[in-house]
This record gives sequence, structure tokens and C-alpha cells, in this order.
Amino acid sequence: MTKRNIYLETIAPEKAVRNAKEALDRKALMETETIPTHEAAGRVTAGPIFAKCSSPTFHAAAMDGIAIQAESTFAAREDEPVVLNHPDQFQFVNTGNPMPDGTNAVVMIENVVQKDEMTVLVDTPAFPWQHVRRIGEDIVATELLIPQNRELTPSDIGALLSAGIYEIEVREKVKVVFLPTGDEVLNFLDKPEPQAGQVIESNSQVFKAYADSWGVDASWSSPVPDNEETLRTAVMDGLKKGCHVVIVGAGSSAGSKDYSKRVFESIGSVLVHGISVMPGKPTLLAVTDERSGYPGRLLVGAPGYPVSAIVCHEKILGPIIHWLMGKALTDRHMADITLARKTPSKAGMREAIRLAAGRIGDKIVAAPLARGAGMITTMTKAQAVAYIPEEVEGVEQGDSLNAELLVPKDDLNRVLVHVGSHDNTIDLLANELMGLSVPMRLVSSHAGSMGGLTALKAGSALFAGTHLFDPETGDFNFPFLDRYLPDLDVTVVNLAIRHQGLIVGKGNPLGIQGVADLTREDVIFINRQRGAGTRILLDHHLKEASINPRDVQGYDNEEFTHMAVAVNILTGAASCGLGIFAAAKALDLDFVPLAHERYDLIIPTAYINDERIQTLIATIRKDEVKAKIQDLGGYETDLTGLEMAPGIGLG
Amino acid sequence: MTKRNIYLETIAPEKAVRNAKEALDRKALMETETIPTHEAAGRVTAGPIFAKCSSPTFHAAAMDGIAIQAESTFAAREDEPVVLNHPDQFQFVNTGNPMPDGTNAVVMIENVVQKDEMTVLVDTPAFPWQHVRRIGEDIVATELLIPQNRELTPSDIGALLSAGIYEIEVREKVKVVFLPTGDEVLNFLDKPEPQAGQVIESNSQVFKAYADSWGVDASWSSPVPDNEETLRTAVMDGLKKGCHVVIVGAGSSAGSKDYSKRVFESIGSVLVHGISVMPGKPTLLAVTDERSGYPGRLLVGAPGYPVSAIVCHEKILGPIIHWLMGKALTDRHMADITLARKTPSKAGMREAIRLAAGRIGDKIVAAPLARGAGMITTMTKAQAVAYIPEEVEGVEQGDSLNAELLVPKDDLNRVLVHVGSHDNTIDLLANELMGLSVPMRLVSSHAGSMGGLTALKAGSALFAGTHLFDPETGDFNFPFLDRYLPDLDVTVVNLAIRHQGLIVGKGNPLGIQGVADLTREDVIFINRQRGAGTRILLDHHLKEASINPRDVQGYDNEEFTHMAVAVNILTGAASCGLGIFAAAKALDLDFVPLAHERYDLIIPTAYINDERIQTLIATIRKDEVKAKIQDLGGYETDLTGLEMAPGIGLG
Repeated sequence: MTKRNIYLETIAPEKAVRNAKEALDRKALMETETIPTHEAAGRVTAGPIFAKCSSPTFHAAAMDGIAIQAESTFAAREDEPVVLNHPDQFQFVNTGNPMPDGTNAVVMIENVVQKDEMTVLVDTPAFPWQHVRRIGEDIVATELLIPQNRELTPSDIGALLSAGIYEIEVREKVKVVFLPTGDEVLNFLDKPEPQAGQVIESNSQVFKAYADSWGVDASWSSPVPDNEETLRTAVMDGLKKGCHVVIVGAGSSAGSKDYSKRVFESIGSVLVHGISVMPGKPTLLAVTDERSGYPGRLLVGAPGYPVSAIVCHEKILGPIIHWLMGKALTDRHMADITLARKTPSKAGMREAIRLAAGRIGDKIVAAPLARGAGMITTMTKAQAVAYIPEEVEGVEQGDSLNAELLVPKDDLNRVLVHVGSHDNTIDLLANELMGLSVPMRLVSSHAGSMGGLTALKAGSALFAGTHLFDPETGDFNFPFLDRYLPDLDVTVVNLAIRHQGLIVGKGNPLGIQGVADLTREDVIFINRQRGAGTRILLDHHLKEASINPRDVQGYDNEEFTHMAVAVNILTGAASCGLGIFAAAKALDLDFVPLAHERYDLIIPTAYINDERIQTLIATIRKDEVKAKIQDLGGYETDLTGLEMAPGIGLG
Repeated sequence: MTKRNIYLETIAPEKAVRNAKEALDRKALMETETIPTHEAAGRVTAGPIFAKCSSPTFHAAAMDGIAIQAESTFAAREDEPVVLNHPDQFQFVNTGNPMPDGTNAVVMIENVVQKDEMTVLVDTPAFPWQHVRRIGEDIVATELLIPQNRELTPSDIGALLSAGIYEIEVREKVKVVFLPTGDEVLNFLDKPEPQAGQVIESNSQVFKAYADSWGVDASWSSPVPDNEETLRTAVMDGLKKGCHVVIVGAGSSAGSKDYSKRVFESIGSVLVHGISVMPGKPTLLAVTDERSGYPGRLLVGAPGYPVSAIVCHEKILGPIIHWLMGKALTDRHMADITLARKTPSKAGMREAIRLAAGRIGDKIVAAPLARGAGMITTMTKAQAVAYIPEEVEGVEQGDSLNAELLVPKDDLNRVLVHVGSHDNTIDLLANELMGLSVPMRLVSSHAGSMGGLTALKAGSALFAGTHLFDPETGDFNFPFLDRYLPDLDVTVVNLAIRHQGLIVGKGNPLGIQGVADLTREDVIFINRQRGAGTRILLDHHLKEASINPRDVQGYDNEEFTHMAVAVNILTGAASCGLGIFAAAKALDLDFVPLAHERYDLIIPTAYINDERIQTLIATIRKDEVKAKIQDLGGYETDLTGLEMAPGIGLG
């Protein structure tokens, strides 16, 4: 077997950042450059800047009116105005004009009675320097205008130009290169279609987007193969190009193909290997020494999993690079959120929990999304991220956590928090709601129909999508509401009637006709998770056909969405699964119809007048939306948007 | 006289923004474009985006280890491990490898005991899909990945590339041109040295810096002369170039040379003329009609005063442009601040108060800076801006206001709030403190020595710089502390001994020798403000010389700093003034010495262990800082950094 690395002790990210700062000599590493002032916003001054000229450089009229000597009006009274003659006693001035010699006040044109071209009346005394911007009022030549180490704001640019400073010395930009690695990694620039074992490289671009927002001079390379020498050459190329920081993407954990540590050790010393944050643990930091020929630069091994990489960028790279730039890191808005579900966490590790969050009543309720470090979509779906501290082992449902907001705080008031069964029409609604003139986010946590009811009971969802069939009554949802939510007053609105059936391969190669085929030896089933309405429907049909679930191969293999079930069939991982027609159609699979069912939205009546719920219902009732639902295939919209009552069944 | 415009009724900025949104047809105005995904961060999707491929596209090992069939380990016990043989029962896999056919779990390499090349032992049962990333775990092909109208984050870019989306359709960038106007305005690109009546154009660059931070395609023109036809041509050029928004800088108020409104009315209709915010009032909004040839575009008259223009950018242009882009405007962090001084405000107008703010005890104390709309440095000096609402007429000292922070909130803990007498050594300290590895801001409110003592009494300063001479005792500061702050325990540390004298023109053209000359008819004096130690010193010397202040020409003309006094003499506005040597030297003026005085820092003993105060004192005591003070000229550093006691005088 190949040699493996061993993690140094994992350390807190703050300590990792501190280690890097201590090991780097910022003054030696970062140079300065002189650039035009008008291109310097966001840059950091290399030294103090003193004003070259004053602003204004002269006593200037601050209003349109007449320039006078204030003393000449001291006797003015409303019933006894003073008379002033042009040009000795007054002159017309516009805002910005220099004050004529011998004048020290402006009377606004509105307060002047003009007798004729040469004579005016003023009926209120002016005080000296009234409506006059005096020399140096804003800026005095030679004065300290901007100190060293200042991140220049738009206002600073205005002040600098006003003071006659046309070029300034600033710290150079931090230069960084990102080197993605891995034999299995495809260059996105080639627009590849990945096969099994292949992955499209994207971490370099996530980093690039962060770096651009930080004002860094960032570049990236095509993927570097898994080979120690090739990696060393790529790192050295980065150093030779003058990069202050070289980041190696992936290859920093403890696998046999993780060469970053060995490469870093050959040209520098490792400062950090492993941080106590999940995801993000396999972060590696080193500083180059004389052996590299470019001592004192930072080498970073960023984790390969996308969410781990993001945590590394936000908690390690961001702070270090901002320190190198001499800038403050913009801190995110924080908010206290109430956890919608019990969430375990590992003691000794800080855990980044991505949250689907929205306001419900007077709380911001947040449902934890999936935890996998490989799931980039948990970041695209999240409105917030909370870090469960190292010393805490799990957080209970209803506990409060302080979370970083990924969206503006006001947006949380425009989030429709949905917990329940997954359906493609929910995605369709999500997209429709983003088309409103003020977009609304539909945030969906796929917890199955029963999970939706539980969430309503706990007050952690605004509404729940369910399709629970009760064999005894032949009705949908209401029998379950009576049983599980007897005390909650709810309104039930139908979203669609949908077709459920067995999703099978294109052309139905195994000739599956119904549930009876599920016990066949050549048929591998893929199931939905416990509590999913679709699984309850399957169990009902198995029972009707007197089939023991133990006799169904793959009954214990669970997926959380219809689309995930369909993908299993597309890739041959399973031969069939129960799901909706739309999922089969989307992947060009075949479909063996089994049943129609009602997919309803359960809305606590207390929320019915909430603007978001009203918008949701209005959207569902739009004819164009109904047409789009029908276009998906496998849906009927006869009941769509109508309020349901017990006993309606399929209408 | 030339025609003047009349303001429409001023309206709240929110209403002005609403008017613009109602008058613009966003859908007709803004087009879409297809761009590479990896260049799309910060852009807004034009439609929903569905995944092209799944991620992973295969069942993938999520750990380095062995791939097995979980069922083969169900019998494993710690004391009875199962034996697995290569290649039928296990195969080695690295993270990311496809799972070999027939396997459904990974056992981490750390948990495998390797007997030989072909045999391993496993002592814990694996569960199915353990350490496996299953097909579509992150992204399922055909699923909605990103809805329409989404501002793309770095994570979104990662998700899009992972899903095989290499190009996307986004809304085009908002295109804006800024046209500065005014005959007196000089193009900064010419690196001008302004004469009386001239101003360096800088508003275009303040706007450009805002626009760049918003992600707008912004350009600007050289200054447009004050001529209606020329302005119309410049505006039409902007429209012809495809700009969605044309901004005319200055010329939007009611002056005789304010042509913007007339130009706008000739090619469109005016929506807003005047907003109820000070500064910012002369904001003008119009929408073009058919007469322009380019109907439905936005015309903006931005105020000419720099702070007014900034308010217009932040409260009017920012929201409208973000709406055009389909983006949320990033909201600033807010904080409750305690006002250090009573602050008047005009009823019916919202007033933007720029604040020098820092933490003192458990409060953020904020001193209002100067109010002038022309003072860009109030924005560069401020840490916060508070808006006093229209319905409020003034705010009392000690009142709390919710303010927008211009710096990260943590920075307020690193602000040294100084209120007191102005001295160039304070600027020097401010620059030194910004050179610390974690910079510290020294924020100074020039309120004179007496103002400093008042601020200490009110708890609105961390320390005060004073140089109050007591003729009776010949001592500095302590007699005043006894009189005005008898109950406050303070520590007094000397900053420097400084030379005060009469600042006179280069070569002393009027031959001024001392205060006796101040009564001469040809001598015009420039004074400091009431409460300034320098003014108290002057009054002392006048009294000693039995001179009545009434006999000093210009005694009532006040400036707030030494440098401002010196500028008056440089420009000939006055023939002499009392001030420090450093101010005369900086502007190459002559200096007639009058007295030495002690400039001390008065520090409430309660704050003496505050990290900021400790840092301040340590900085003052540095030899290199003392050397820099001496280099300014006109200072002695014999007492610098030492704690003072009553009766020391000049040591």
C-alpha cells in the first residue's frame, strides 16, 4: 500500500489563522505600488496622505444670491429694509462662485427684493460668513487627509481628488493561484460530460468568486494530475509567477493520493494540518522556506469536498488574505434562529450546519439541511449557517442558535418555509415565486408527508405538502390530520392530483407490470424513506397483494426524492421504484401507472392571512401555473387551488 | 436675471424610489445575455436552470478504505472479525472512486486490519451505503437547480459547474454614465492645480466607486460646461451609447445655471424634484419619452455637493439600480449609538448626521461631525451615519439613535474617541496607531480644550487634549480640572510642549512683532473659536498688554484649527493669527513666537487600563514617535509621555 499522511492535531480555525499570521512576515512579503487615485477604491494606503490643496481653495458662495458685507445689513428690519447698490454694496453670485473682495456673507436670492438692476432691498440682518464656504472648510492643504493602512472608500476617493492627490501609494494586491488536483477531475473549460468516476472541476471557480469579492488578484490552473512531482512543479510555477499564496485544491487529507503535505514539506514547513471544523477539517497550511527559492509565502491545502473548501475559504483563507491586504473582513449579519429539528454534532469538532430558514410568527425557524461535505447544493439552498461549538454535543429541537445569514435579513420575511413531501410542482412553484416583482423564496425541506405534519405540530413550517392515502376511508390527508394534528386548525388546499407508478427502465426491459413483479429475483427495487407518502402507498399496495416487504429486493434502500429514485433506475443501480410520472418523464424512463393521489398543501389557519401564504395560494390559482403543472405530465389540475374537505377523495 | 427652476414638493426618498420603479418598465428596459458560468458570480439568472448531469454521476466512495458488500460484515464482532478476500469480497478505494460492481459500503482504512495483500479483517458490521456518496446525492439531473432572478453566489457557481452547466443566461448589466457639469469644474485627469473659483471634479469617481461595488457597467465623461445645449447633447450621447441610466452631476438644484431640469423636460418627464433629506435635497429624477428616441430610460440629476451626492447614491440610485439588476441591496450593519452632543435638525427634513463613533464603557458614543453638504471629509472621518427622522426637531445629548455603521462593528472597540483641542501631533498619533498590526483609529472631534473637558464630564470621550494656561498659578490644565471636573479622577499625561505665536505672511510683510501690533489699522486678525485654549492664551496676552479685543480687527472671525488659521494668512484673508509653529511651517509662513505651553492628554483614571489607552500611552512613549514630533518643528518632548502633577508648569 502507498504511504498515507497522518493528521497533525486538529486546531480551532482562529488558532490556525493566528499560526499563519505569526509565521508570515507581512512587511517583507507585500510590496506597495503607485496607482491613479481614481482607480484606488478598495485599496489600502501604504502611508499617510497629506492634502496638496485646500478645499475650497477660496471663500465660496454656498447659495445662489447676493454677496455683501454682513455689517452693511446689521440695521435691516422687516419694516425698514436696507438698500444696497450694485456693484459697491452687492454682487450677484451663484453657488460655488468666489466671494468678491470685501464681501463676507451671502443673502439667498429668495430673501432679496430686487428694486431694479442696480438696487436691492434686504430686510433681515446677515451674520458674517453666512452661506459662505470658507477657505479650507473641508480640507486644509498639508493636513493629514488619510492615514496609512486605510481601506479606501468611495468618499475617500472624493476627498483625495478634491485635495489634488492624483496618484497614491497603496499596498499591492494579494496574488493567489488555485491549483485543482485529481486524475478524476475534468476541466470545466472543456465542457465535459462526466462518466462514472469523473467529476467536473468547480472548486477553483468557487474560490475565484470569493477572491474577486475580496479584491484579490486570483488565477487558477487546469487540473493537476495525482502525481507528487507534477504537483511540486505546479506549486513552484505559482511561486515563480509571484503568487503570495498558492492553494492546492484537494489532496490535503490523509489519503494515499494526498501529496500536498509531502510537497509542502519539501519546500517549507507545515503550520497546520487539520482544523476542528466539519466540514473543513483537511485544511493544510504551510510557509515556504529557502528551499523553495521564494521563502515566506503561504501554501494552502484546501479540502476537496466543496462545502469543506467553502469553510476553508471563509474561516481560514478569508481572514489570512484580508490580513495580508490590511483590510477588515466584512462580517455577515447574524440572527438568532430556532432549530426546527434535533441536530446531533460531534464533541470536539465545530460543525457548520446549513439551514433553510424563514420567519414564522416572531421567530426565525431554521431546518438543518443535509450534512454531507460533498453537497454544494446545501449551500445554494441555505439562508443561514450556524456553527455548533466544539464543546456542545448536539442541539435540541427548539433550541436557539446564533447563525450567519447568507441572505439579507429582510429576505427571511419573504421565505415560505415548506416541510413535507417532495414533488416537482413544488420546484415549479419555487421558480414562479422568484418571478414576482419582489421575489419570494420557497424553501423546501424534504421530510416526507409525515415529516410535514410533525413540522406543522412543532411550528417549524408555514405549510406542508402531503399525499397520505387512507385505505380505510379511501380519502386523502384528512384521516391523518384527525389522528396526528387533532388540535391544529388547518386549511387544506389541493396543489394537484398526481399519477404514481413504477418507474422502470426505458422500454421496460424487465417487463414489469405491477407490484407482483417486485418479488422477482431479477428485480431490484429502490424505496423511499420512512414516513414518505409514496412508501405508505407502496406498503398499502404490497399488503393488498399479500406481499411481504422482506421478499422485495432493495426494500431497505432509501432515497429522499422521486428524482433520486429515477436516477437509480437510469443508472441501473435499481430496476424499478415507486414514484411520480414527472420524474420518469424528466429522465426519459418508462412508467407503469399504479394509482392517482391527491397532493395537498396543509396550511395552519393561523397563517392563512400571512402575505406569503396568500401569495402562494394566488400563484397556485393562476391559469398559467396550472398549465405549467399539466405540461410536466402526470398531473391533473381539476382540484388545483381549491379548498379541500374530508371525503372528497379524488373529487 | 436668468430663469430659475422651482422645486417640486420634496418627497421622502422611499417614495422617490417607488415613483421611479413605477415609471420604468424593467422588462422592456433590461435585456438578457448568455455568459460563461464561471464568470457569472454576482449576476442574476434570467430564467430557471435545470441540472444537466447528476452529482455524483455514480456511487462514489466517500472515504479512503475498502469497498465491500455491507451484508458480508453483518456477523462481524470485535472478538470475531470477518475475513474478506480480494478481489471478490473487497477492493481498495480512494475517496471519489466509483464503487465497484456489487459493493454498497466502504470501511475506512483506519478500521481495517490488513492480514496480507489479499486478505483483510473487519470487526464491526458495516451498514448499507456507509461512507458512500450515492448517485445524485447532491444534484439530480433535470431537477431545478437555481430559480430565476437569483443573484449567483460563489456556491451557486460551484453547483452550476458540477451540474454540467457551462453557460447561462443572465440579466445584462445596468449601464450608467455620469456626466459632471460646471464651468468651474476641472478634469482630475489633467492633474490641475485649482485657482480661486475652481474646483477639482471628483463626484464622478465617487459614483464610479459605488457603481463598481454594485457590479454596474459605469462610465463617466469629462466635465460638461454650463450650457443647456451642450448638456442636452451629452445626455443624448449617453442614451445613444445604450445607457439605461444617465446621471448629470450638479445642476439639479434651483440655481440660474441649473439646466438639468429643463434638459430632462425636453426629452422626458420629471418624476421627482427634491427629496426630503439633508444633504441630498436637490435630487432630480426623470424618465425619457419618445422625443428622446430612447424612451423608458432613467435620467438622474445628482446634487453637486459631495455629501448630497453620496446620499443620492445611497438612498436613491442604489435602490433603483439594484431593482433594475434584480438584486437585493446589501444592508449596512446598524447599531444604537448615544449622541455626544445635542444636535438640532429641521422639521420636515430627514437629516443625515455623520458621526465619529467609538465604544466607551458599554455604549457606542457618537459625536456629530460638521453638517455642511460640501464637506466630504465628514464622510471620510465618520464611523457611522444616523438619520434624524422628518418628524423630529433635534436630538438631545445622551439620546439614543439607530445608526448605519460605515466600519465593521468590531472596529468600534478599537476607536480612541478624542474630544478636545486640535494639534498636529494628534494627527501624527492617528497615523501611528493605524500602523499597528491591528490598526486602531484615533477619532478626533475638534471642540477646543474646554470642549474636551465638557466631553469628559459627559462621558463622551475616552480622553481630551488640552493646553489651558492659568495666569494666576502659571500652571497648565490642573487649575481648570479642579474648577470644571472636581469629581472626576483623571490621569494627566503630557503629549508635548508646543510653541505658540503669531502666524504671519512669508517674510512678515507687515513687520508684526507682538500683540501690540494687533490694533494696527492695516492688520487683520483671524481668531480661534470660543473655548479654544489658544483663544484663552490670546485673551491673556491682550489683557497683559491692556488691549481691548474690540480694537482688534477680525477678532470675531473664528476658525476651528491651527491649520485653518494658517490658510487664512496664506491666502491673504487675514494678516495674522495666533497658532502653533507647526502650522506656520507646514504652509511655509513666518512665525513670531509668543509663548510655550503644555499640551496634555486628560484621561479619566477609570479608562486607564483600557487597551486603547494603554496602546496610546505606549505609542507616545516610543522614541521614534518623539522624534517625529520634534521633526514637525515647534515642539519640545522633554515631558512627552510623562504623568503630570499640579505645579509642574513647563517642567
